[in-house]
Amino acid sequence: MELTRELARFIADSRCSDIPASILHEAKRAILNWTACALGGCRDEAVNRIISALSEFAGPPHATLLGRRERVDALHAALINAVSSNILDFDDTHLKTVIHPTVPVASALLAAVECSPASGARFLHAFVIGVETECRIGNAISPAHYDHGWQITSTCGVFGAAAAVGKLYGLSEQQMVWALGIAATQSSGLLAMIGSMGKSYNMGHAARNGLASALLAAKGFSSSERALEAPRGFFNVLAENADATAVIAGLGASWELAANAYKPFPCGIVVHPVIDACLQLRNEHTLAPEEIEHIAITAHPLVLDLTGNKTPHTGLEAKLSVYHSAAVSFLYGAAGIPQYSDECACAPAVMAMRARVTVKVDPSVPREAAYVRVGLKDGRMFNKNVLHAIGTLERPMSDADIETKFKDLAAGSLSPCHAQDAINLIWTFDMLDDAGQLAHAVVPKSMTSATPMFSGRPH
Amino acid sequence: MELTRELARFIADSRCSDIPASILHEAKRAILNWTACALGGCRDEAVNRIISALSEFAGPPHATLLGRRERVDALHAALINAVSSNILDFDDTHLKTVIHPTVPVASALLAAVECSPASGARFLHAFVIGVETECRIGNAISPAHYDHGWQITSTCGVFGAAAAVGKLYGLSEQQMVWALGIAATQSSGLLAMIGSMGKSYNMGHAARNGLASALLAAKGFSSSERALEAPRGFFNVLAENADATAVIAGLGASWELAANAYKPFPCGIVVHPVIDACLQLRNEHTLAPEEIEHIAITAHPLVLDLTGNKTPHTGLEAKLSVYHSAAVSFLYGAAGIPQYSDECACAPAVMAMRARVTVKVDPSVPREAAYVRVGLKDGRMFNKNVLHAIGTLERPMSDADIETKFKDLAAGSLSPCHAQDAINLIWTFDMLDDAGQLAHAVVPKSMTSATPMFSGRPH
Repeated sequence: MELTRELARFIADSRCSDIPASILHEAKRAILNWTACALGGCRDEAVNRIISALSEFAGPPHATLLGRRERVDALHAALINAVSSNILDFDDTHLKTVIHPTVPVASALLAAVECSPASGARFLHAFVIGVETECRIGNAISPAHYDHGWQITSTCGVFGAAAAVGKLYGLSEQQMVWALGIAATQSSGLLAMIGSMGKSYNMGHAARNGLASALLAAKGFSSSERALEAPRGFFNVLAENADATAVIAGLGASWELAANAYKPFPCGIVVHPVIDACLQLRNEHTLAPEEIEHIAITAHPLVLDLTGNKTPHTGLEAKLSVYHSAAVSFLYGAAGIPQYSDECACAPAVMAMRARVTVKVDPSVPREAAYVRVGLKDGRMFNKNVLHAIGTLERPMSDADIETKFKDLAAGSLSPCHAQDAINLIWTFDMLDDAGQLAHAVVPKSMTSATPMFSGRPH
Repeated sequence: MELTRELARFIADSRCSDIPASILHEAKRAILNWTACALGGCRDEAVNRIISALSEFAGPPHATLLGRRERVDALHAALINAVSSNILDFDDTHLKTVIHPTVPVASALLAAVECSPASGARFLHAFVIGVETECRIGNAISPAHYDHGWQITSTCGVFGAAAAVGKLYGLSEQQMVWALGIAATQSSGLLAMIGSMGKSYNMGHAARNGLASALLAAKGFSSSERALEAPRGFFNVLAENADATAVIAGLGASWELAANAYKPFPCGIVVHPVIDACLQLRNEHTLAPEEIEHIAITAHPLVLDLTGNKTPHTGLEAKLSVYHSAAVSFLYGAAGIPQYSDECACAPAVMAMRARVTVKVDPSVPREAAYVRVGLKDGRMFNKNVLHAIGTLERPMSDADIETKFKDLAAGSLSPCHAQDAINLIWTFDMLDDAGQLAHAVVPKSMTSATPMFSGRPH
């Protein structure tokens, strides 16, 4: 089977008219959500540090850093915008694989289109193709690949970025074979990085390298022609028992973007059902923090595995702490950006509430579910079983929900009017002559540091 | 065990005076050989294409492309110089691991020192530390890691580059922990790329990303603090049955550079014993090509595994063909740059001779050995058993041999006088105030295309 070539042929041959309207709309939702995440994350310390470390090496300023005033070359823009849009752990999720599909693909694509202008329709088409490529490769290797310790968004994202940019540039089938090959040999990203800035660097690395793969392939830089399926290729080296056929089965008949979900909470997705249950309990019973004696969670084993940190010291660590997430849900009635700040991670009230949380794992609990029991000091007990957390495909974020998320995350950078203009632009993205307008539409008119701050006060 | 931190501490605490004089001399041999390889490879089509693809994204021209007149930013220089110095398959080899240690480390280091000037002595010290780091990590995961399909020079080279540049920049222990962590999460490179330009891109990727790791760590960009040993860290994800203790056992008491070897032939090292045997047979018996009926090789299984291509169509493929290597050795009495050109790969005389070569694998043959029997049309037969190929630690290239190799490879770029000046500069490298002089010393005075050409005529 010439798997890599079949995939390359599909990408090269795909026409915009092949994409169903519902998928194009989903692409807009994904880009709206991604832009929101970038605006919320673009002044994070991780972003500041990567700019400070690398800007002296940056090339001609053809590309925008989302939500900021600096401009850099496209390769650095792809890298940094991916970090910005992932750092809050608020990006979208292809639930089958736990890939966050938009970050690597859109970050590479926007940087590319700022250098080589193309219409919004072509951008959307390339974006759909990129997501399709990374998620199908992800399907082929899930769940063993992730379980083995690979951060699947970065290992697969580099393919998505290469495919999307390659499509935008109109690469031939042969060039696309090389682009996928150069992407394959750069595929990397360790799950050990979660809880550190390295986690988002993985995404940036994927975006940047995917873009570079397409650029190199366009100039005839060669790679293995069977990078996916070769004996020492991607599947055999980075995946156990890969189902290679999943990459090409039904190509063009189904679209992975249809299975994309958007996060209501800026933290590891496995913890969302827990937060959902805690918030429902708090609201239904109007519970005050000081009433709470004990919070008992029963969840899928992956929850403790990925978010088992009982004593996070930073906001980044808190995002990967089920204890912290449950505690802030009851304390503040919210699990938003302020609740995952460094200050909140170290607030005495939060630390005290975290100590009241226990977690039991049970492999029979589905990944999208969680059972929470809260015991009060007066002896009362309340239970909440969430089967599908808010934000899953069964209870999806509506277009309006994503707009609200955009406005919240943009509040530190854009005026309400400016944010609404950007939202309108994204909903009409397929009408744009120049897709690069997206980048310009979210440049702050004046610098402001009005990012939501953590007040520390339970409310 | 805090393995990553122990390694980081060793790197941060190392002093130049800790390095034995013999190891500093070996470092000069390595750099002489590396510079030679870069001069020989710097006008390869792979290098032209990568420059053509990426130069429009390059930043301020602070760093030199070895043997060329273009200057680019340090990150791109690290990438491109690594490709130049690896593309001929003529670089050095740490035989225990099959790592080509100098390419990623020296490429990153030279680019770094052109931006942040430092003395030759500091450069050599950082170089030794970088090689020590990559080879010790390689020791810990060999041979399973390579056998699994990883190109070990790139997967380990990114650590070496990060360690070397980190040492040059004087990173603290904590910063070095992060540099190793950011390197770990970028570790990649598939063996499937051999025979394509992607093989050398892997080296460039390692050099560039190792440099970026040190730059990011210097600015406090964080990573896992246990990137090597964490449950989802480098060893557990990219290696089976790693012997983690090999990374730190006897650190500072033994030096991996002492086990470095230099190639006499520009092709996959596993095929060197075969070439050695063929050349000896040809010379001892003054064999003319037309006398030869049959060439029967017995070798370690890895030889067919890595170089089993019977009908290479390009020079790059020919470098990974034991059939081609044996054929040209008998045809031309040489296996040098001209014998691994595209023209030579397709020459009728070469194709005819390749068809006379058979290879039998035998696991009892050591990797450094090969047995060759040549049968003549007149019925005579001659045997040659090579136990340690020329260029191994048992039969090392002398300083003079490496000088000769330098002059050969520099001939397309530098006048003989100019080449001798560069050689002298490298032998006195520890006396230089500015190590960056190395880069300037090999800029061609005028452009020339006098690279050795393949004539096609048996001689």
